[in-house]
Amino acid sequence: MRYELYYWPSIQGRGEFVRLALAEAGAPYVDVARRKGGMAKLERLLESPRVKCPPFAPPFLKAGRLLIAQTANILLFLGARHGLAPKNEAGRLWVHQLQLTIADLVAEAHDVHHPIGSGLYYEDQKREAKRAAESFIAERIPKYLGYFETVLQRGRDSYLAGARLSYADLSLFQIVEGLRYAFPHTMKRREKKIPRVMALRNRVAARPRVAAYLASDGRIPFNESGIFRHYPELDRSR
Amino acid sequence: MRYELYYWPSIQGRGEFVRLALAEAGAPYVDVARRKGGMAKLERLLESPRVKCPPFAPPFLKAGRLLIAQTANILLFLGARHGLAPKNEAGRLWVHQLQLTIADLVAEAHDVHHPIGSGLYYEDQKREAKRAAESFIAERIPKYLGYFETVLQRGRDSYLAGARLSYADLSLFQIVEGLRYAFPHTMKRREKKIPRVMALRNRVAARPRVAAYLASDGRIPFNESGIFRHYPELDRSR
Repeated sequence: MRYELYYWPSIQGRGEFVRLALAEAGAPYVDVARRKGGMAKLERLLESPRVKCPPFAPPFLKAGRLLIAQTANILLFLGARHGLAPKNEAGRLWVHQLQLTIADLVAEAHDVHHPIGSGLYYEDQKREAKRAAESFIAERIPKYLGYFETVLQRGRDSYLAGARLSYADLSLFQIVEGLRYAFPHTMKRREKKIPRVMALRNRVAARPRVAAYLASDGRIPFNESGIFRHYPELDRSR
Repeated sequence: MRYELYYWPSIQGRGEFVRLALAEAGAPYVDVARRKGGMAKLERLLESPRVKCPPFAPPFLKAGRLLIAQTANILLFLGARHGLAPKNEAGRLWVHQLQLTIADLVAEAHDVHHPIGSGLYYEDQKREAKRAAESFIAERIPKYLGYFETVLQRGRDSYLAGARLSYADLSLFQIVEGLRYAFPHTMKRREKKIPRVMALRNRVAARPRVAAYLASDGRIPFNESGIFRHYPELDRSR
């Protein structure tokens, strides 16, 4: 069975957390909306009255008869199927907890450039975005990255949930890449304070399947339509 | 075994989604931070280097040796333990997907009054909040509530995931209550368009254990320190 991933075709966005898990799992999948006619298929699943359990928004994954939405939920599913999460209850819940914390950070990173509303252009909320970026850089980036540094320090292991990689590790890699892209100036100083997070990032990047994926056409470059956007005017600290 | 719930003692906030599940399950628990010395206990669990799997933020639940954080993750755990979610994989994932969509709405409802940063006072971002509220009222409330109306319409059943109540139903009840408190003017018009959501809200409110909980001292009144805040100046449509 080949999975079908449904996500916007021109950005990494939230879909990228799923792509990384599928890549590491070596699971065959079709990135539906990037194929001819794929966007119409995606929209049909969002709109058709025949879908009994409709997604609120992409990404969603078709796995046989299952249609699963919400990034962290898709990862919960893939984690159990492909050994990307511990099998015991405590470990499963811990990895999911970390993933949901990453999801909060992703939402906040998006809202920095869209503090007033996702229905408005960046240009129409640029002044507000500058203020939001100040808070995000001064308080939120240090708090979140410091938290993951603490988790790695206390765990004293290669990965967030022990000696084996989980989907939360893949997602933390993606967070570091995204923040580096969006806030290079900020991250240059910040990275020195989170050596364990950066070592984890390097460990994930060096995994053969992840490395192959990152070098492939499957990896869409970061751009200013995604979650992590590089607007130099927002990458300033006071 | 009695659960220990750790959450800020003076607001409903995200903790309320857990309180409602515990109430409906009839599960005994201590609301730790509302007892004498409880806040110190909460802070110790957040800060102590001896906690190997630390929460990023409240709420968190102690269940024997398990320490579980992130609202949706706590509900995933309680749902499986107390029959508040289907047992089969498809049902479990569907309920969790709905819960994560509710979590997104909760975050957006909070950000309406704190669009620039959670570290700043409302008064310091009031102008931005007014703009954010316009988007939230015009686009997001209709989109989210319309989505849940569609889910109920397609499912043709008493609850979101079928004939039996799940934790997502309890959370949708709480969403309606919160939006009614924060945006009474907006909701008065909106409720007419979501009859199935409102019927579900009434069905949940009438469940004996929920009704008893809502009438008890356990239910903290809504107030302007929580997620759903009533600022009349934000409850306007253009």
